[in-house]
Amino acid sequence: MFNIRILFAARKSAILLFAVFALQGCNASSSEPVDLLIRGGAVVTMDGDSRILENGYVAVRGDRIIDMGDAAQLQTKNYRAKETIDAHGKAILPGLINTHTHAPMVLFRGISDDLDLQEWLTKYIFPAEARNVTREFVVAGTRLALAEMILGGTTTYVDMYYFEDAIAEETKQAGMRAVLGETVLDFPVPDNKTWGDAMTYTEAFLLRWKNDPLITPAVAPHAPYTVNADHLKQAQALAERHDVPVVIHIAEAPTETEYMSKTYNDRSVPYLDKLGFLTGRVISAHTVHVNEEEIRTLAARAVGVAHCPQSNMKLASGVAPLRAMLQAGVAVGLGTDGAASNNDLNMWEEIDTAAKLHKLINNDPTFLSAREALELATIGGARVINREKDLGTLEVGKLADIIVVDLDAVHLTPRYNLFSHLVYAAKATDVSDTIVNGKILMRGRKLATLDEGAIRAAARQFQERVSQSLKNGN
Amino acid sequence: MFNIRILFAARKSAILLFAVFALQGCNASSSEPVDLLIRGGAVVTMDGDSRILENGYVAVRGDRIIDMGDAAQLQTKNYRAKETIDAHGKAILPGLINTHTHAPMVLFRGISDDLDLQEWLTKYIFPAEARNVTREFVVAGTRLALAEMILGGTTTYVDMYYFEDAIAEETKQAGMRAVLGETVLDFPVPDNKTWGDAMTYTEAFLLRWKNDPLITPAVAPHAPYTVNADHLKQAQALAERHDVPVVIHIAEAPTETEYMSKTYNDRSVPYLDKLGFLTGRVISAHTVHVNEEEIRTLAARAVGVAHCPQSNMKLASGVAPLRAMLQAGVAVGLGTDGAASNNDLNMWEEIDTAAKLHKLINNDPTFLSAREALELATIGGARVINREKDLGTLEVGKLADIIVVDLDAVHLTPRYNLFSHLVYAAKATDVSDTIVNGKILMRGRKLATLDEGAIRAAARQFQERVSQSLKNGN
Repeated sequence: MFNIRILFAARKSAILLFAVFALQGCNASSSEPVDLLIRGGAVVTMDGDSRILENGYVAVRGDRIIDMGDAAQLQTKNYRAKETIDAHGKAILPGLINTHTHAPMVLFRGISDDLDLQEWLTKYIFPAEARNVTREFVVAGTRLALAEMILGGTTTYVDMYYFEDAIAEETKQAGMRAVLGETVLDFPVPDNKTWGDAMTYTEAFLLRWKNDPLITPAVAPHAPYTVNADHLKQAQALAERHDVPVVIHIAEAPTETEYMSKTYNDRSVPYLDKLGFLTGRVISAHTVHVNEEEIRTLAARAVGVAHCPQSNMKLASGVAPLRAMLQAGVAVGLGTDGAASNNDLNMWEEIDTAAKLHKLINNDPTFLSAREALELATIGGARVINREKDLGTLEVGKLADIIVVDLDAVHLTPRYNLFSHLVYAAKATDVSDTIVNGKILMRGRKLATLDEGAIRAAARQFQERVSQSLKNGN
Repeated sequence: MFNIRILFAARKSAILLFAVFALQGCNASSSEPVDLLIRGGAVVTMDGDSRILENGYVAVRGDRIIDMGDAAQLQTKNYRAKETIDAHGKAILPGLINTHTHAPMVLFRGISDDLDLQEWLTKYIFPAEARNVTREFVVAGTRLALAEMILGGTTTYVDMYYFEDAIAEETKQAGMRAVLGETVLDFPVPDNKTWGDAMTYTEAFLLRWKNDPLITPAVAPHAPYTVNADHLKQAQALAERHDVPVVIHIAEAPTETEYMSKTYNDRSVPYLDKLGFLTGRVISAHTVHVNEEEIRTLAARAVGVAHCPQSNMKLASGVAPLRAMLQAGVAVGLGTDGAASNNDLNMWEEIDTAAKLHKLINNDPTFLSAREALELATIGGARVINREKDLGTLEVGKLADIIVVDLDAVHLTPRYNLFSHLVYAAKATDVSDTIVNGKILMRGRKLATLDEGAIRAAARQFQERVSQSLKNGN
């Protein structure tokens, strides 16, 4: 079988191979290995100067941005990239941060709409949850939510639901970043039937995840009207002990203000403040019905606020005093809320709506500007979760949570101002690539870590069960 | 050259051909030719009973819907369709009707935002228009707008701009349906420098198009504060003479109310009514600042209203009293306004915003319901343009303006209620097929009558010119 020609060919290959190695060796002194190079797009940094680098690049090594610049600067470098994304005709942005949602509730998307809040909760949401929310439901729902978020350019989300440990597993596996708050209440919920059980579950959950690079576990007492004072203090103490965030709904609807007044002869913010509950680790969802003094309290205590304009409109809850909060120095981000009330996890629509709604409410077309609206969804959100040193802008040294937005669509043509385009005209479907922690989770609109078909199929199975459960109930 | 084998082959072909004809002849008694059959989808009729035919079909011959039903009914028919659209997993709806836009202004998309209305108009829009709006500009802009509208499932639009004759030609060529109002004002505009010229141009335009199956020409006096009483009467008389619609902006912003009060000691609606201007042929855009009495006037005169929620929010104009208008029996549709102020021609976002905004403003989560919001964009719009007998619902005998919406996306999974999904979760990009007057204008998201690449390229050329013109100006 031995053949002199094969030997000769092998020798030729070896020489060729040697030459290639030698050439690479020659370059080794000047070429620098990077894991990911995104090049040719407009880099919308969202930094303090709102810099936009036209025809720019972002270089990533490991989980960090190690370099950025324009085309001329890139020419002076000699990067050898494992992965390259060509972003010509596209914008490169920090990933969006959704500061409030209930991810698995995507499985209840559109189950009931256009109803009075009490009717919606008591006739649909609570029965649907009581009959359907299991660990398996949460797994299927989280996967569906993750797919929707990654497809829409969300790279970090703040959650509040049950079986949060399962949500953490799914989120980690998909490669997403999240602050995950295990919801605790004074009454039995799908995963824990007593307060004691809930505290035990939550502490184990915190211990398991508190050093994870992607998952930040959190304690999520539902609201001041569903968790008593003693339990609120316990929840806060648990969070302090493990140095993790606290997620809560505060002052969402007028009914809460009424209830707090009747029951505690106080309003939610001062009531919580007197308990010592309001600290820099608190992420307060909604925060619609707060007066000037309460806004000053939120600022003084460094509470972060998750503003959810679309959910608040749809449930007729009101409009959060965003301008006053920003003026007072409160950290504010945007949230979609759960898909049972919104009915999607689309941050682009929240950004667009926030910009338009606050112009209307303030009777001032100059506030909220497009740039300010986009800040809420990026660096604003990062501040809310106390991660502004790592997230929310594209800057050297920050974590590589990056999205690429295709500007080629008809609805984005022509182009004069990038902020205007991103806020008033871009859609979630224009996001072409999503990168979290340096890892590509979506490339050219194809999910890299999740199986979209399998996720949809599983969701439809739960749809059947949920529909059946509502028929069988009252 | 004669060859016995060719003769033989030809004889065989003739026999085969005869057999095929014979077979078709046999079927002729039972099979019925149709031009288009859309089958397998959920037919959302938007008719008086809000019927939804699950697994339904719509059959089209020429420009009309000739039959509709469910799968069982289709089995009893024997349609031979020239074209078939498989709509399994999709919804089949009447096309959306955009009751107010300025189509060519897509070329100014995002040119200036977040500004005070006066600054926006005087520093950007008016100079940009004065320096750039030519017939060629209008042609390129209309094509871009048509592409965006067809991609988003709009099948009819109401326009108001200059060189409307060119807009009509482009619209007709693309196969879209439109009410096109030539804008006339007391001061010189890009296409006509005097009122006399404008009247001459407009009359020729009306004469050219008034019997067209797709184009309804109209007269569009800009607003009561930009067209004097005598000219308003002339415009209305011209419309009467040719039996065409009148398009106008009424009571858009508080500044108009102030101006009318100062100049005419009256408010816009009573002022126009005293002139005899308000008739059933009037399509009134915005109509935000109208009181109860004025709403009764609009209802009594059968004026149609184009409600533009997003534009009104973005320019901080206010919120039109939609609930009161509907209760009074005013015909109301939805409009995007021009892309210089919105910044796209996306009817799905107007529908979604309308549903949420009126819940907030009315402090009532039950109004506007998803079904009612979708009605505004379909049958509501048809009533505004007095075409409710032909358009706005899917019913046998109506014109075949139909869209197909793909329900397979992650953000539309799972599915409990179709109205909720279409209003709160569906996006323009979910529209897969657009049919106008029985003709397919988009199939599987590919435009059939327009060249998307060429349109984008032309738009970018105008972008250069517009940017340059603003730099060269002040």
